[in-house]
Amino acid sequence: MNTDVTRALYPRERVATVQEATAKAGLAALLLTPGPDLRYVSGYDALPLERLTCLAVPADGEPFLVVPRLELPAAQESPAGSLGVELVPWDETDDPYALVARRLGASGGKVGLADRMWAMMTLRFRDAMPGVEQVLAGTVLRELRMRKSPAEVAALREAGEAIDRVHRRVPEFLRPGRTEREVGRDIHDAILAEGHTTVDFVIVGSGPNGANPHAELSDRVIGEGEPVVVDIGGQMPSGYCSDSTRNYCVGEPPAEYRTYFAVLEEAQRASCEAVRPGVTPEAVDAAARDRIAAAGYGEYFIHRTGHGIGIETHEEPYIVAGNTEPLEPGMAFSVEPGIYTGPHGARIEDIVVCTEDGYEAMNRTGHGLVVID
Amino acid sequence: MNTDVTRALYPRERVATVQEATAKAGLAALLLTPGPDLRYVSGYDALPLERLTCLAVPADGEPFLVVPRLELPAAQESPAGSLGVELVPWDETDDPYALVARRLGASGGKVGLADRMWAMMTLRFRDAMPGVEQVLAGTVLRELRMRKSPAEVAALREAGEAIDRVHRRVPEFLRPGRTEREVGRDIHDAILAEGHTTVDFVIVGSGPNGANPHAELSDRVIGEGEPVVVDIGGQMPSGYCSDSTRNYCVGEPPAEYRTYFAVLEEAQRASCEAVRPGVTPEAVDAAARDRIAAAGYGEYFIHRTGHGIGIETHEEPYIVAGNTEPLEPGMAFSVEPGIYTGPHGARIEDIVVCTEDGYEAMNRTGHGLVVID
Repeated sequence: MNTDVTRALYPRERVATVQEATAKAGLAALLLTPGPDLRYVSGYDALPLERLTCLAVPADGEPFLVVPRLELPAAQESPAGSLGVELVPWDETDDPYALVARRLGASGGKVGLADRMWAMMTLRFRDAMPGVEQVLAGTVLRELRMRKSPAEVAALREAGEAIDRVHRRVPEFLRPGRTEREVGRDIHDAILAEGHTTVDFVIVGSGPNGANPHAELSDRVIGEGEPVVVDIGGQMPSGYCSDSTRNYCVGEPPAEYRTYFAVLEEAQRASCEAVRPGVTPEAVDAAARDRIAAAGYGEYFIHRTGHGIGIETHEEPYIVAGNTEPLEPGMAFSVEPGIYTGPHGARIEDIVVCTEDGYEAMNRTGHGLVVID
Repeated sequence: MNTDVTRALYPRERVATVQEATAKAGLAALLLTPGPDLRYVSGYDALPLERLTCLAVPADGEPFLVVPRLELPAAQESPAGSLGVELVPWDETDDPYALVARRLGASGGKVGLADRMWAMMTLRFRDAMPGVEQVLAGTVLRELRMRKSPAEVAALREAGEAIDRVHRRVPEFLRPGRTEREVGRDIHDAILAEGHTTVDFVIVGSGPNGANPHAELSDRVIGEGEPVVVDIGGQMPSGYCSDSTRNYCVGEPPAEYRTYFAVLEEAQRASCEAVRPGVTPEAVDAAARDRIAAAGYGEYFIHRTGHGIGIETHEEPYIVAGNTEPLEPGMAFSVEPGIYTGPHGARIEDIVVCTEDGYEAMNRTGHGLVVID
């Protein structure tokens, strides 16, 4: 990625924004180890290592980034190197936890830990900062991460286009007589070839495996007339993720499948069309769920309707019963109802972003069953 | 992998062994979320998700595996499904932390958390089990994981052979005029083609970048006569990891490079030959370090000599000053001294396993500089 795009996605001002939010939440500091929280705040896609890398963002005072000396060049070259944040290298025989505690000087109050911080670090920080209560950095960062900037929406759009290109190629891969694993391997390669840096998941659920929402790739041979659920996604160089599900069949599927697929298509559309500012995630969930239930398939829709997406494939907001926090422009999430009857199943999934007056879909391939000759 | 190989690597009896060790360490239970600790104990290579998957191994009583209902089929099909451990699915609106706490019934004492458990889980468990002290599962598991079984050594041998095949192909990729990134991409593909399921790292450090032990792939064009450090590794379907470093040059390198490379080769050999039961890791470190220092290059060897390896690329035992815990048969680790003078650098790395009377190297390609015409 060029530097301008990186800076638009991970703006320098974000650290100051995060400091303000940290102060407002009554936390003394955030401690961010490698993972999505660190990347969001600093742009630094640091390797997850047993040696501590940690961006400390105090509510008051100067942020600093503690790095193993071996990682100093990588940190300097990363966007974090030009944030104006001091880089503090530590040597093989230093105690970096004591170093962070000493510089922060927190002797009470709360610190927010990166949601994915490893226990080996959480417990070392606990011991290095007695009297300090540990909470999740997510309590502060979720509010920011949930509301995507225009640059973040552009990155999600780019990710959506990339995974759409993969879906358009699925009919090349899906031939009768091939196994799910063989098809999955081709899709895996296509996800990378179409611009992702990593493959996050490849689900190719044929026949009864399509009725398992999180099916693993198997050696099952895909037969004619068997519906296949293809749910795929990966992470782009930007850090932002794709996730889209479409349904395929080599030849004509069973009649009862056609019946419930039509219900699903209508339910997924209704759910997307429910999206606008002020509507609750549970209402978006209900828009799909109620239609599926009304058609008599309620018992076959066994998961929430969606999950937020950004630099993580699953993040806030979750589109689930009980989530009553109203949607706002910039919130991005999947809308992916499914019907899983047993002999087969179907799911349709788009990533959508809430706009000022409705939604924008990041995925643009047709929603209908793709019948392959 | 076939079932017999999986069972040999991840034997059913391991859960009982872990229970005994947990009791002996005075812990009430281990709580293992997706990651290497869970995989080691159960064979289950679970997806890291925000929904809780957790194997609870109490010192007394029956172990159980809590899984999101969506993951139940995957858990059942995994080696964990045939351990005789109860699988406890939870639904989208349940509180799985309360579920674990209730079933464990621990009201005091200590529980050991998977070393890589995410903070979002660590803090939920803390709140769900007031009065229970959290420590690392690693305090129990390191003793087991550090001592590889014959099946684990066989898996490391297989990983070593796979990465050796990649090193043998490096001369095909490394042509003058190509960039580090281009060469790195070919190596990446070769790591997968030679049998790994994931690529953990690809370092192609040419000229001055070779003097940075953790160099990132860059767009630097590799010139003639420039030494190149190639440090690569990945994870095999078995779960076990490879890691090997060799040095290449298109054309003849500078004379001073030849001088210190000879020192390095001798130091790396001496370090390997120091390996046998009863010797300390710090003595293995010193065997390389003292020779490099004696030749006047001490200031250019800026990292520890090695790290343990198994289902993680970096694990115990670390081959570093201060580690005085004597080696035992079955311990597996890297021996990878380096000399980084600035205009270029070199590192030679093998994975070795401590045997009854010495060591076995998992990597068998020649240690000398590979000169490419």
